[in-house]
Amino acid sequence: MIVIMKQGATRSQIVNVIARLEQQGVQVHLSEGSERTVLGIIGNGRPIDRAQIERMEGVERTVPVLQPFKLASREFHPQDTIVSVNGVRVGGKQVVVAAGPGAVEGYESFLEAAWMVKEAGAQLLRGGTFQPGAPVSRFQGAIEEELRILAAAREETGLPFVAEVNTPELVPLMATYADVLQIGAQEMQNYALLHAVGEAQRPVLLTRGMMSTVEELLMSAEYILSHGNERVMLCERGIRTFEPSTRSTLDINAVPLLKQLSHLPVIVDPSDSTGRWELVGAVAKAAVAAGADGLLVEVHPHPNQALSEGTQSLTPGSFAQLMKELRAVARAVGRELLGGDR
Amino acid sequence: MIVIMKQGATRSQIVNVIARLEQQGVQVHLSEGSERTVLGIIGNGRPIDRAQIERMEGVERTVPVLQPFKLASREFHPQDTIVSVNGVRVGGKQVVVAAGPGAVEGYESFLEAAWMVKEAGAQLLRGGTFQPGAPVSRFQGAIEEELRILAAAREETGLPFVAEVNTPELVPLMATYADVLQIGAQEMQNYALLHAVGEAQRPVLLTRGMMSTVEELLMSAEYILSHGNERVMLCERGIRTFEPSTRSTLDINAVPLLKQLSHLPVIVDPSDSTGRWELVGAVAKAAVAAGADGLLVEVHPHPNQALSEGTQSLTPGSFAQLMKELRAVARAVGRELLGGDR
Amino acid sequence: MIVIMKQGATRSQIVNVIARLEQQGVQVHLSEGSERTVLGIIGNGRPIDRAQIERMEGVERTVPVLQPFKLASREFHPQDTIVSVNGVRVGGKQVVVAAGPGAVEGYESFLEAAWMVKEAGAQLLRGGTFQPGAPVSRFQGAIEEELRILAAAREETGLPFVAEVNTPELVPLMATYADVLQIGAQEMQNYALLHAVGEAQRPVLLTRGMMSTVEELLMSAEYILSHGNERVMLCERGIRTFEPSTRSTLDINAVPLLKQLSHLPVIVDPSDSTGRWELVGAVAKAAVAAGADGLLVEVHPHPNQALSEGTQSLTPGSFAQLMKELRAVARAVGRELLGGDR
Amino acid sequence: MIVIMKQGATRSQIVNVIARLEQQGVQVHLSEGSERTVLGIIGNGRPIDRAQIERMEGVERTVPVLQPFKLASREFHPQDTIVSVNGVRVGGKQVVVAAGPGAVEGYESFLEAAWMVKEAGAQLLRGGTFQPGAPVSRFQGAIEEELRILAAAREETGLPFVAEVNTPELVPLMATYADVLQIGAQEMQNYALLHAVGEAQRPVLLTRGMMSTVEELLMSAEYILSHGNERVMLCERGIRTFEPSTRSTLDINAVPLLKQLSHLPVIVDPSDSTGRWELVGAVAKAAVAAGADGLLVEVHPHPNQALSEGTQSLTPGSFAQLMKELRAVARAVGRELLGGDR
Repeated sequence: MIVIMKQGATRSQIVNVIARLEQQGVQVHLSEGSERTVLGIIGNGRPIDRAQIERMEGVERTVPVLQPFKLASREFHPQDTIVSVNGVRVGGKQVVVAAGPGAVEGYESFLEAAWMVKEAGAQLLRGGTFQPGAPVSRFQGAIEEELRILAAAREETGLPFVAEVNTPELVPLMATYADVLQIGAQEMQNYALLHAVGEAQRPVLLTRGMMSTVEELLMSAEYILSHGNERVMLCERGIRTFEPSTRSTLDINAVPLLKQLSHLPVIVDPSDSTGRWELVGAVAKAAVAAGADGLLVEVHPHPNQALSEGTQSLTPGSFAQLMKELRAVARAVGRELLGGDR
Repeated sequence: MIVIMKQGATRSQIVNVIARLEQQGVQVHLSEGSERTVLGIIGNGRPIDRAQIERMEGVERTVPVLQPFKLASREFHPQDTIVSVNGVRVGGKQVVVAAGPGAVEGYESFLEAAWMVKEAGAQLLRGGTFQPGAPVSRFQGAIEEELRILAAAREETGLPFVAEVNTPELVPLMATYADVLQIGAQEMQNYALLHAVGEAQRPVLLTRGMMSTVEELLMSAEYILSHGNERVMLCERGIRTFEPSTRSTLDINAVPLLKQLSHLPVIVDPSDSTGRWELVGAVAKAAVAAGADGLLVEVHPHPNQALSEGTQSLTPGSFAQLMKELRAVARAVGRELLGGDR
Repeated sequence: MIVIMKQGATRSQIVNVIARLEQQGVQVHLSEGSERTVLGIIGNGRPIDRAQIERMEGVERTVPVLQPFKLASREFHPQDTIVSVNGVRVGGKQVVVAAGPGAVEGYESFLEAAWMVKEAGAQLLRGGTFQPGAPVSRFQGAIEEELRILAAAREETGLPFVAEVNTPELVPLMATYADVLQIGAQEMQNYALLHAVGEAQRPVLLTRGMMSTVEELLMSAEYILSHGNERVMLCERGIRTFEPSTRSTLDINAVPLLKQLSHLPVIVDPSDSTGRWELVGAVAKAAVAAGADGLLVEVHPHPNQALSEGTQSLTPGSFAQLMKELRAVARAVGRELLGGDR
Repeated sequence: MIVIMKQGATRSQIVNVIARLEQQGVQVHLSEGSERTVLGIIGNGRPIDRAQIERMEGVERTVPVLQPFKLASREFHPQDTIVSVNGVRVGGKQVVVAAGPGAVEGYESFLEAAWMVKEAGAQLLRGGTFQPGAPVSRFQGAIEEELRILAAAREETGLPFVAEVNTPELVPLMATYADVLQIGAQEMQNYALLHAVGEAQRPVLLTRGMMSTVEELLMSAEYILSHGNERVMLCERGIRTFEPSTRSTLDINAVPLLKQLSHLPVIVDPSDSTGRWELVGAVAKAAVAAGADGLLVEVHPHPNQALSEGTQSLTPGSFAQLMKELRAVARAVGRELLGGDR
């Protein structure tokens, strides 16, 4: 950490700050410039309370030297992490696509969708999101029924599935069925939930919040990793900006930035981020070209009749066409994408 | 709802859209302009799935005519709602201040803070926030202990307290102790939680999310109201913007806007929104001048030693001074604020 | 236009609004719903002052039916526009890359850069930006000298060049030398400048402002088109958001959206938008995959010594490598990109 | 400046950076922590090119120690600056209100407005904005005519006037007539214009851009000050955010922040920032309560017939009422506001 003193900070203010820091067992280097005095702190591994130092007399501000995440950083773990999801490897040469409808609307319909996306080359099922609008206890039954449908579809098609979990109490149930536990954008900083999935024996797909920075996403990943779960994947699905034409603004810069800062796989969700099916294809191709390790794409056999988010679902036909194009883009950037024309 | 057809939409596309709408039991008015055909829908009270209509051939977009909230709207309920919190009336002529430390650090210290803010004129205690970093079951004991401290301080000082609840399972416990259940910014769209507090017998203070619009805040309020709890208060605490000097940007425009759109009381939190104690006073005065019905102010007897958020806490001395100034501002805009010089 | 009346608007208020509208020569369709009355307006081609109508008693709001741009719209001009820049066609099958240093630092150095980017496959020179920090009159000489250097480099290499113009008085001079007049992000709504380039005989590259929506970009394009210049290209270079790790957030969604809404070519600037050379390559590939018709890339022979923006410049070596990769991505999406290995 | 080296930076990389810095005549302090090496630079007054240092091998990032503005800072000039506008003192105990229509629509009508706002207590006229939609040369006559109307109204009423100037070539003409030269939000970083007003003999009102940070606003103020004009006033008029209900989000936090960082007067524009007359009053009162030194309020004798921005204009009646309320708020925060009941 670095402490920048105010212009005109007195000698006794400087001495006080140094004393307070040294009490915490750190070493302090003093640099006195013509306009400012700067203190360089050499830490002892324990965090220093920046807020307390910043309230001391004569202190202008503090600057952290280290990134606020470590386990998630590429410095700590230079090699790419490959997360294995029931045999599907995410983060390696293969670009992996998870696809499926936005909500589970019954076994027949879900199975139809599952077969269709498998045929087109998807390797994972996007198994809908569970956002109970009431305390979990009343919904447990309904949730378990949906999970059984998803598990049955996996049984039939051989595709593992991703399911969103939004409250820590549901983690044990979800972990029994689902192959990947997704943390939705709204829960990115729900620490009780992060803790729970950090202790679960399932890969986690952590979605960036619509108001969260790249650094905050990596801090949430760190929290999961620190609870013992090393199989964390990051999901970029757009941030909220002033642009009203799309549901959110996909932060394409974040894809190479995350790959630079971290060793964790990066997945992009072009469906939720744009909210408009006509834009999904172009944005999906952009994500693969930018280096994404996977995609999460909403596909519905009959989008006009979808119970939710019909405006962002691709039809199976347009999804199959997109997969062909994605395959070409993946090859162009030295990656591979399974499917269709194998 | 209004449906705007694409330029060049064919007669058969228009007829299909009308047929689909009429199936849903609504009446359709056709206006054919030189460049666009527009359909005006006269509803039957049931919602229409706009996404489905928007996917139909020839449809450009749909425009809702009604606001997406009703119980929360001033149209529905023209008079200001006054929420009674254990005898303290929020939303009337009195501007009500809730104050206290950001975290409960023990009985003695909390009680000291409670007396100090009461003396300065606060009518409610800001009772810290409970954000377990682990599944609730492990924290239940610690939470209950903190609630007992808060209840004891209420007993002593006579001040009701506000406590934040962030998961539906905690609502029954919290409702046993706390006088106001606060929903934090991150939970504004946690529908299971909104449902739970909607069924609780306690006033609710609903905080606007850092990425949420005024309309979305009112939709969340609507959700609580629709579950039977009429004692809802709204809290503006800033939105996330590109400006990095403050933690968030307090949306002062939202204060009169919320009062115009809704009958619910509006509280402003200048501490969390600025994150900087030097700015809290000016922003608090601005909020009262803009018509806020109350404030949530962080005060700590010894901010330099605070466990959390020391940089945004006022000292009791500066809080007392601020209360005097707030009293003058309240009077200037035809309101009252208790305290000090009574 | 549609006028939505307030709930409880009186008959006489409705009649007044209709009367005011009819005075302006438009036809009004009345739809009376159970909760709101809606007026559908069939225009006569002349604009209606929405603000005046919105201030009338009983009016809640107005909703425009038509897009606020026409000449720039794909509806008006369904075929892609191809802009010819001294023989280089932008907007067709070819993806066109403009490259060069951020500032002109002398003839030798610029020429060296020009040959290097040409060799790698660039078809246009990015000729720096002219942002005088003083009234133009004092800078005219210096600007003309830079333009002569650019023109000389064009003479040598055969590459046309793009130069930024930021004030209307410079347009005649710039148009004498430059092959494309770029309007920078800060000038996107400088109507005097848009007017001036609208009357110039040069293609225009209009950059989206960092705080401007896609619709506003198209309205500015409309303004240029309406003054007679049909050779307009659009440039996405990122918008300002809360994310601090990159200079701006490139709005990749905007690429397919602009292609959908408009017939004009879309260029992407990955250098200015990220501000970080390590991210430029990935974002450039994403842009081409998303359907961009061209790129604007900053390349400097010796970025460590660059006078401006060294942190975002590619070296000639990394640019040549990037061009190879871009060529593969372009082919993958059915486009072509000249250069190197032809 | 501080340079933070990457983890694992080699000794020779560190030595190179130190050598490069020392070449520039600065002193370097080396602090070697367990995870990072940090270089503290003691400058010699000349700026260091951070971008060049950041591109060197082994460098992670640089951190500036000094604020990027000096003349505008309170450190440099601890006393509040009071700007005298033809005898009206801005920045002192008095809160000063500038009011008037959004556009000049003729002498009679402007004079009527001028008398009305004067009667209510305004001390300055808001003299419309000049945003030629064509090169200045064609508009010079029209602009001069408007300026003559404004000057005539000043002659009659005794109120100095503020006029917006948006291109450097107009500065001499504007400075002949206007008492304050306003730089609009879109021109906040038009350095040629800032230079021109920096050399003019008139007070300047510098408006914050809708996408500009507080720091950037102060850097633009610095630029004007550095060209010799010390009479600079700052104007907060809202920033662009995701909230769509108001034209922009007034950053009320910025008012006390600017007063803390700078000695320059701070004016707030509640009309342009909200874009809605119903919100103007509440926001104006908030601004004064937060410590603003003045307001810019749009008032039109007949807003329903206004040529521009009718939706944000107050009527003279509601303005007079607002002035009474503002007077009370000003007194409540220890300020004064002239008018009415003197």
